[in-house]
Parts: sequence; structure tokens; C-alpha cells
Amino acid sequence: MAKYEPNLSLIFQALSDPTRRAMLARLGQGAVPVSELARPTGLALPTVMRHLAVLEEADLIATEKTGRTRMCSARPETLAATEGWLAQQRAVWEARTDRLEDYVMQLMKERQ
Amino acid sequence: MAKYEPNLSLIFQALSDPTRRAMLARLGQGAVPVSELARPTGLALPTVMRHLAVLEEADLIATEKTGRTRMCSARPETLAATEGWLAQQRAVWEARTDRLEDYVMQLMKERQ
Repeated sequence: MAKYEPNLSLIFQALSDPTRRAMLARLGQGAVPVSELARPTGLALPTVMRHLAVLEEADLIATEKTGRTRMCSARPETLAATEGWLAQQRAVWEARTDRLEDYVMQLMKERQ
Repeated sequence: MAKYEPNLSLIFQALSDPTRRAMLARLGQGAVPVSELARPTGLALPTVMRHLAVLEEADLIATEKTGRTRMCSARPETLAATEGWLAQQRAVWEARTDRLEDYVMQLMKERQ
């Protein structure tokens, strides 16, 4: 099976908007019809649909049409992959800081 | 002490660009002069400076002028805070899925 490769540019672009982040947070309560996601935003439906398209293209949500209702649901695996990327960067930075600390400790010991 | 509140819109906007992500990854090797960050990108210095300004405004890097050299370094605490936000969203989604699974298991037991 091919490793899941998140499109980080699309994901971070999608997450950079507070309305889209609020929509994602709302999906913590489960699959939700588009109309319900739209209501608290106070935005026109076409604007909401554009935000949802950005989230769906980034694979942060999935949408499915059931009868006349389009349901939205979260895709936690995409957030997990994004967290993975951030954690990896941070691990490299922090490992370097640790090595630097070890080196400074070593120098201090040698001076004693 | 005030809780550190990352500006998620600025952070995700900064991370949405592959050149800026590559610059961040490069800083895993430690503080680096701007000229060295610029070299592998093949970009003109003003373009590089604009990318660095976006990263600095999002608090993902710090820069410091030493003599004629501007040094850039990573700020892992900003990545940590961003990971925290992602993990929090995911935890809510996953907790819901777990509760749903429990409920389905309960229904299945009741039918036996």
C-alpha cells in the first residue's frame, strides 16, 4: 500500500483561515449537514461551499450527498499526518539543542 | 505569566509554502545566516527576506543581527503550540468515534 502523503501546502492553506478552523472544530461533534455548518458562520451558502471545498481538497473533511442533504465529516488521519510533520521538524530542532547542551556541559567539566 | 497564544492563522499561512517549509527544515541544523538559507532556494535575496519576514511574524523563527550578518534560528515552542491545537482537534474527533463504537457494540450485545 502506498504511504499516505498529505499535501502539506493545501492542508496548511486550508487551516490558515479562522472560519475553516471553526468548521473543523464543529465536526468534532460528528457528521453535520452543510446547512448546520453554515448557520453559526453567518456567511452566505456559496461562501460556505467555497470554504468546504478548500477543506475537502486538503483532505481535512469528506462530504457525502444523502438524498438532498450534503453531510460533512472530519478526516482525523490528515490531521495526524500533519501533526507528524510538525513533530518531526521539532524533534530535529530539539535534538540539536540537546546535543549543544551536552557539548556545553562537556566543556564546563573540562574547565573544572 | 500570560499563556502563550500562537497566532494560528499566521502560522498556518507561513507553513503553507514549500520554500518556507524547506527553510524551517534547514534550521534543524542550527542558527544559520540569511545568505546560507537563501543559497539552496536559488531565489533573489529580497524574495528570501519576504519569506523570512512571514516566518518571523508567525514566530516560527527568530532573527538577530550580529555585525553585518543576520542569523536565523528556529522557535520550536511555536511548532509545539501548533501541534497542540491539531492534537486537540483530533482528540475530540477520535473520542467521538470511540463513543460511537462503544454504542454500536452495546446495540450488538442487546440484539444477541
